[in-house]
Amino acid sequence: MTSTIDPKLIGKPAPRPRRHVRTLTGYFPEKDASGKEIWPRGDENVWKDGTRAIDKDVPDVTKSIINHVNTSLARQAYNIDDMGAYQAVALAARDDLLINWNETQLNYTRKAPKRAYYLSLEFLMGRTLDNALLNLGLKDNFTQGVDKLGFNIEDIIDKERDAALGNGGLGRLAACYLDSSASQELPVWGYGLRYKYGIFQQLIAPDGSQLEAPDPWLEHSNPWELPRVDVTIDVRFYGHAERLDNGKAIWSGGQEVLAVAYDVMIPGYHTKTTNNLRLWESKPKRGFDLNSFNAGDYEKAVQSSNSAETITSVLYPNDNTMVGKELRLKQQYFWTAASLNDIMRRFKNYGKPITEFPEYVAIQLNDTHPTLAIPELMRLLVDEEDVPWDKAWSIVTSTFFFTNHTVLPEALEKWPVPLMQHLLPRHMQIIFDLNLTFLQAVEKKFPGDRDRLARMSLIQEGYPQYVRMANLACIGSRRVNGVAELHSELVKTTIMKDFVEFFGVSKFSNVTNGITPRRWLDQCNPALSTLITETLGCTKNEWLKDLYKLEGLLKHVDDPKFQKKWAAIKQSNKERLAHHVEVTLGIKINTKAMFDVQIKRLHEYKRQTLNLLGVVHRYLALKKMTPEQRKKINPRVVFFAGKAAPGYYIAKLTIRLIVNVARVINADPDTKDYLSMFFLPDYSVTLAEILIPASDLSQHISTAGTEASGTSNMKFCLNGGLLLGTVDGANIEIAEEVGDSNVFFFGHLTPAVEELRYQHTYHPVPVEEKCPALAAVLDEISAGRFGDGSVYEPLLNTIRQGDYYLLTEDFDSYIQALSMVDAAYQDRTEWIKKSIRTTAKMGKFSSDRAILTYAEEFWNIEACKVP
Amino acid sequence: MTSTIDPKLIGKPAPRPRRHVRTLTGYFPEKDASGKEIWPRGDENVWKDGTRAIDKDVPDVTKSIINHVNTSLARQAYNIDDMGAYQAVALAARDDLLINWNETQLNYTRKAPKRAYYLSLEFLMGRTLDNALLNLGLKDNFTQGVDKLGFNIEDIIDKERDAALGNGGLGRLAACYLDSSASQELPVWGYGLRYKYGIFQQLIAPDGSQLEAPDPWLEHSNPWELPRVDVTIDVRFYGHAERLDNGKAIWSGGQEVLAVAYDVMIPGYHTKTTNNLRLWESKPKRGFDLNSFNAGDYEKAVQSSNSAETITSVLYPNDNTMVGKELRLKQQYFWTAASLNDIMRRFKNYGKPITEFPEYVAIQLNDTHPTLAIPELMRLLVDEEDVPWDKAWSIVTSTFFFTNHTVLPEALEKWPVPLMQHLLPRHMQIIFDLNLTFLQAVEKKFPGDRDRLARMSLIQEGYPQYVRMANLACIGSRRVNGVAELHSELVKTTIMKDFVEFFGVSKFSNVTNGITPRRWLDQCNPALSTLITETLGCTKNEWLKDLYKLEGLLKHVDDPKFQKKWAAIKQSNKERLAHHVEVTLGIKINTKAMFDVQIKRLHEYKRQTLNLLGVVHRYLALKKMTPEQRKKINPRVVFFAGKAAPGYYIAKLTIRLIVNVARVINADPDTKDYLSMFFLPDYSVTLAEILIPASDLSQHISTAGTEASGTSNMKFCLNGGLLLGTVDGANIEIAEEVGDSNVFFFGHLTPAVEELRYQHTYHPVPVEEKCPALAAVLDEISAGRFGDGSVYEPLLNTIRQGDYYLLTEDFDSYIQALSMVDAAYQDRTEWIKKSIRTTAKMGKFSSDRAILTYAEEFWNIEACKVP
Ligand SMILES: Cc1ncc(COP(=O)(O)O)c(C=O)c1O
Ligand SMILES: Cc1ncc(COP(=O)(O)O)c(C=O)c1O
Repeated sequence: MTSTIDPKLIGKPAPRPRRHVRTLTGYFPEKDASGKEIWPRGDENVWKDGTRAIDKDVPDVTKSIINHVNTSLARQAYNIDDMGAYQAVALAARDDLLINWNETQLNYTRKAPKRAYYLSLEFLMGRTLDNALLNLGLKDNFTQGVDKLGFNIEDIIDKERDAALGNGGLGRLAACYLDSSASQELPVWGYGLRYKYGIFQQLIAPDGSQLEAPDPWLEHSNPWELPRVDVTIDVRFYGHAERLDNGKAIWSGGQEVLAVAYDVMIPGYHTKTTNNLRLWESKPKRGFDLNSFNAGDYEKAVQSSNSAETITSVLYPNDNTMVGKELRLKQQYFWTAASLNDIMRRFKNYGKPITEFPEYVAIQLNDTHPTLAIPELMRLLVDEEDVPWDKAWSIVTSTFFFTNHTVLPEALEKWPVPLMQHLLPRHMQIIFDLNLTFLQAVEKKFPGDRDRLARMSLIQEGYPQYVRMANLACIGSRRVNGVAELHSELVKTTIMKDFVEFFGVSKFSNVTNGITPRRWLDQCNPALSTLITETLGCTKNEWLKDLYKLEGLLKHVDDPKFQKKWAAIKQSNKERLAHHVEVTLGIKINTKAMFDVQIKRLHEYKRQTLNLLGVVHRYLALKKMTPEQRKKINPRVVFFAGKAAPGYYIAKLTIRLIVNVARVINADPDTKDYLSMFFLPDYSVTLAEILIPASDLSQHISTAGTEASGTSNMKFCLNGGLLLGTVDGANIEIAEEVGDSNVFFFGHLTPAVEELRYQHTYHPVPVEEKCPALAAVLDEISAGRFGDGSVYEPLLNTIRQGDYYLLTEDFDSYIQALSMVDAAYQDRTEWIKKSIRTTAKMGKFSSDRAILTYAEEFWNIEACKVP
Repeated sequence: MTSTIDPKLIGKPAPRPRRHVRTLTGYFPEKDASGKEIWPRGDENVWKDGTRAIDKDVPDVTKSIINHVNTSLARQAYNIDDMGAYQAVALAARDDLLINWNETQLNYTRKAPKRAYYLSLEFLMGRTLDNALLNLGLKDNFTQGVDKLGFNIEDIIDKERDAALGNGGLGRLAACYLDSSASQELPVWGYGLRYKYGIFQQLIAPDGSQLEAPDPWLEHSNPWELPRVDVTIDVRFYGHAERLDNGKAIWSGGQEVLAVAYDVMIPGYHTKTTNNLRLWESKPKRGFDLNSFNAGDYEKAVQSSNSAETITSVLYPNDNTMVGKELRLKQQYFWTAASLNDIMRRFKNYGKPITEFPEYVAIQLNDTHPTLAIPELMRLLVDEEDVPWDKAWSIVTSTFFFTNHTVLPEALEKWPVPLMQHLLPRHMQIIFDLNLTFLQAVEKKFPGDRDRLARMSLIQEGYPQYVRMANLACIGSRRVNGVAELHSELVKTTIMKDFVEFFGVSKFSNVTNGITPRRWLDQCNPALSTLITETLGCTKNEWLKDLYKLEGLLKHVDDPKFQKKWAAIKQSNKERLAHHVEVTLGIKINTKAMFDVQIKRLHEYKRQTLNLLGVVHRYLALKKMTPEQRKKINPRVVFFAGKAAPGYYIAKLTIRLIVNVARVINADPDTKDYLSMFFLPDYSVTLAEILIPASDLSQHISTAGTEASGTSNMKFCLNGGLLLGTVDGANIEIAEEVGDSNVFFFGHLTPAVEELRYQHTYHPVPVEEKCPALAAVLDEISAGRFGDGSVYEPLLNTIRQGDYYLLTEDFDSYIQALSMVDAAYQDRTEWIKKSIRTTAKMGKFSSDRAILTYAEEFWNIEACKVP
């Protein structure tokens, strides 16, 4: 009889196929004797006649949409609503993207250029439809087509749900970089995870506190992804690693899960190049879990199958804080293992010797999250490809590039050794082996310096020991960079100081972050984009791809007609925002007032509290004025938006206080015409796209030395909003570009911070003495002016005691800066000029500049045009 | 500030919209003053020009396939394999089905006929592609088109994975009934669940025992379903029910989950009518679970979201046994609630008074699984539609029809009252209220008969109390039927006896099961189908839709040319099976031997053990013969296939014994040319389609009175296999049709069974005395002839002690029947004649006949042709 399964084989690694299989992305055309490419299958003419082209006119578009209504959606004109129409339109646009995507991938395979891979645990993409139509140049055709079918394009665009697979800046940066890579025709792919639940949906409870609801964003199906059921990779966890000779080992047993690829098309602006973002989903491996079904326990087998899926179930909702959950480490390994295996497979298809790997592959590590890629590539090379250890290490260290995103101590990743040993026994061996060799080299260079060895070790001693991911990322990478001038200096002089001394400073450098002007100006502020095109006298395509061209606006700064148009656009964007808030929240906003915006993750270092306390200060001052005095005051509307990590108590308390202060002041008849405040729930890319073009002023007021770069600052300035900030992150470079007179700076500088903190701890001065104005504000809150004060004591005490983020130090200069803002806003014409000058000088902050720097100075890749 | 969520509203039932929303399936065309229909949206001409027709020729087909390769799959000629080609071809076929499906649904809405709904927890559909192409009449065009693209249609068809959302006969019956409904143009929809894991994959371990692996059949995406993200229904569990006046109540709180519809197209044979099977998937309701996110416990909120999905995660793998798991009850309610709500919504769109509900809706309950539909409809009518209690009950009892599928006591559903009270508090109230009124009526008719009241009560007394689902289904339905003559008699005289006395016998009747000749002859045995069409001299369409036409074959029984063709087809089907077994299992089979097949769920009542012991008996006899004697023996190959419920110890032991006996006898050089035995793992519809046409003989040997009908018996006979069976289920009616001389019957009859069991229990006779031949076989097994005998003692003891299924009573006559089979097979011509006569007389067993009976005698619906 038949025995169809041999349990002894289960859990053994399958031999790696030596060649790429045909079914995967890209292909290798076979050639006949004369060198002509052979048609791969069936009748060439039938295939070619059957292949469709990109939609070229309105009838093409309507036909494609109707076809999707009838077939993909199984609906008809009779029963199609806006949501259905959105889906059909999205599918039609997707078909067009796909034609370019197929051609791009085919071209890469044919030309076999060096490729770069951007590994990021977060991609905060936002919506896709509008962006896709703009990049394809088909927005007009679709607008008309949709109209003929009885719909309105803006309503349809508004039905899309954000792809919110990220927490904040780091994830949105990854999205901007993909846009720039495609627009610059660079062979770059992204690799990430397909979370079933992206960042949580933020709700505000009646008491003002944040509630978090899971956001099953895929429930309405996602037309923007291509499920690639043909692209799957086995990923192992647990089990045991048995050492062999020459540093090799065999890793077997444990749990095996399947990584299934979902491809997301990344269209470049006005180019055929359509790159790929590959997101992995975890799935049970069919028939794998013998342990449980052996026991006849079918229910357990089903549960265990289901559990494989939890790996990619949820994005960890923490920004700039390390969470030490086993599942998070599983996510990191699952993702890096699937990605590395995929990259290796693609490289091997080139048929080149393995030693040439770094000549064809560059891998960017976006923060330390993908650091396991380093030992994983070692494992692939040593254990599976039979490369000798030292040669493998030289391949690894020529392949990876590491971007650091923070010097905040709470954000630096480290993992308990016992956990890693259990989950990834082979990788732990590799890390120990690497560490030994590395420390021996350190000892050679700095003999006897035991403190240095302890600081530089990949392992932090103690019970338990920890693996330091930043150290591993540093030694395993060719180059290390920070994300703004100041931040890159801090990296070199603080957390990486020893490594600079060991490797030399040339390994360390800076690439200031950037943003894509396609989404963050052309798409979110179409009127301004049109005005700029008119004014510059070049095509939109030209300046959107060479943002320095914006400087051409400077010529027109003094032209009153131009100023008027500029101001009118800002005003209409403010009204669009006010309309949105009225429709969604039922609140009326005074659009005559100055719009002052702080939108970003809630974090103590970002100091939303400073802004909030400033508002209370202003409110108290207004209350003391006579009605006559108040009339002279510049009316202000302050907007907050942002999510707090669900476990971040102080950040959540800040939201609650904002909401409750807002309730009081917005209802106060004495002051409400001069000052109001709103917390807009559920901040997202889409909300940012409405808020940013509407801001007169935005606040970026982190304690000096804490914000690595910031990117929303760039977005506001690009849209002609003025900046109120500390001398931190990219604020500094923005000021360098636009000139000090066009930004409002305040607060202590980075070099002072350490000393101030020392004083706070060892020679504290009560807040009443140090900053009486602030003390008065705190007292009002404690006293219950905005609801039960005792609720907020833990938050207020962070300022009264220790004051790690230096609010007591910066409050007075902050209030002063706000007065300067008020004064400046009184001269409306001068304000508009500042606004124009700001936009005009934002050329540097295009993510095209940033991505080209990575391409040229790091990855050594070139544009690869689709013919 | 803004409070976007009011927790007090969470868990409150939303008011039911009074009208169908536009987005749902079907529509109501608006009319203008002159009575002309108004085009619903946009430019009518643009819509109409953009709408495509069904593929009509090979170029249409290739174009559609290529379009799906490029867009839906994001692949090209270069990187498409058989699996990808299957997906593209399936999507092309789906588009064609959809055109008919859209037209059919539109037609139903326009004509507003009375509709029937078939509620079944199982639909064992098998593969779809081949069936769809045959029903569409496009098989030839697709075969050629696929060929032009460099593929082979049979290979492509073979890539499809079975939709195995059922355990066995009950689920496959539902699938056949859907095919017949569509083929007969009846307005019938199916309602079921979209299990993520269908019936488990069966593997055989080296020791011969069954292993079960979860079967994530959707992992490769399923082109045959239409996700209807626009059709969702809220379903509540737990919470509390507050009584109001007039028998009404409000049910609120607890857990709410979302039911999302997936529609499966059911094409009729050679008709435009393409009906719908709606399967529900459970999903978390976004932002619902305030309890957990209130606590700031985001991880718990995610888990609880994920847990909503487990409701439709897995099909319970039990056939004819009740499992009392809470999750199973959740499945049943989730499914009936979603279906009833959907049906109600559709009815209300007709704009008729609610009292006319039964004039537009008939609902068939497939076994007791959907019995909760009865209290659920009461709840909808009384609590939500304000219908008075008695009126509501009369609507309910005019709407439902109940099919009983078994009289086995272990299969009768009952649920603990405390569990139901907890999970469905409102339904428990309704059941208690119904019970009171019902028992009062019984008391009136049979005053003082307390035993009768206890037997008929919906509640079985004891600790805990139980709800008897069959009783509830009976009193809530207009008619009750069994599934074969004998079984329907048993229903009336045993489990429903009291109810017959109360309601009168006319409420109880019989509809003998049927099978669709499209799949079970035309598709699985194309050569025979062609021969039949040639021979009958009518079109295939005619006899496939009026299966009595097969009688025309009788004229040709004696035609030697016809006999030869008939025999050749059987032989080539045997070779096809042998080839399949060789390719998949690496085993060679002697196709000259008689193929003797028993394939069905493993169950003691089905008595695979009897067959197995018969084989051992034959083996022992062969061993005793001289080589000369053996040469006179008719060579036999015995096939088994079937799954055992994972928790069914004895059934699994039977598999293990079959496998290990097979190992010994297949390796025995003395006998292996005369007798061999195979257990084919992972029985499925697709495997049945290969096995059935290849069988010379099939066995249906249940203890008399236990098999309600059986349907595989009909399938074998339709394909010209002869039947060896007991006088049970539909075997009896098959014999009535084909004549006793063409079937092999043995064993005790139903009326004897009760007495025999009584004797076994109270006056046992040792097996050595009662049946020495059997005792000898048992002893050989115990003695270790087929491996460690002690392993099988629990199985053997079921025969030695108690022998509930009467093997000791039937063994001798079984062996005798087998001798008669051998004798008959010696005269090959006579055997072929029997085979032809069998096929010729199978007209009655078409599921078209069955479904028309339901339509006319039960549901009172009529064909509704698509113009
Ligand atoms: C949704 C979202 N979150 C976070 C950020 C990053 O903001 P910041 O640079 O202020 O931290 C952005 C930038 O636009 C964003 O759109
Ligand atoms: C896969 C499968 N299981 C079970 C059955 C029902 O078999 P039986 O009527 O022998 O119980 C069938 C009928 O063809 C089937 O195809």
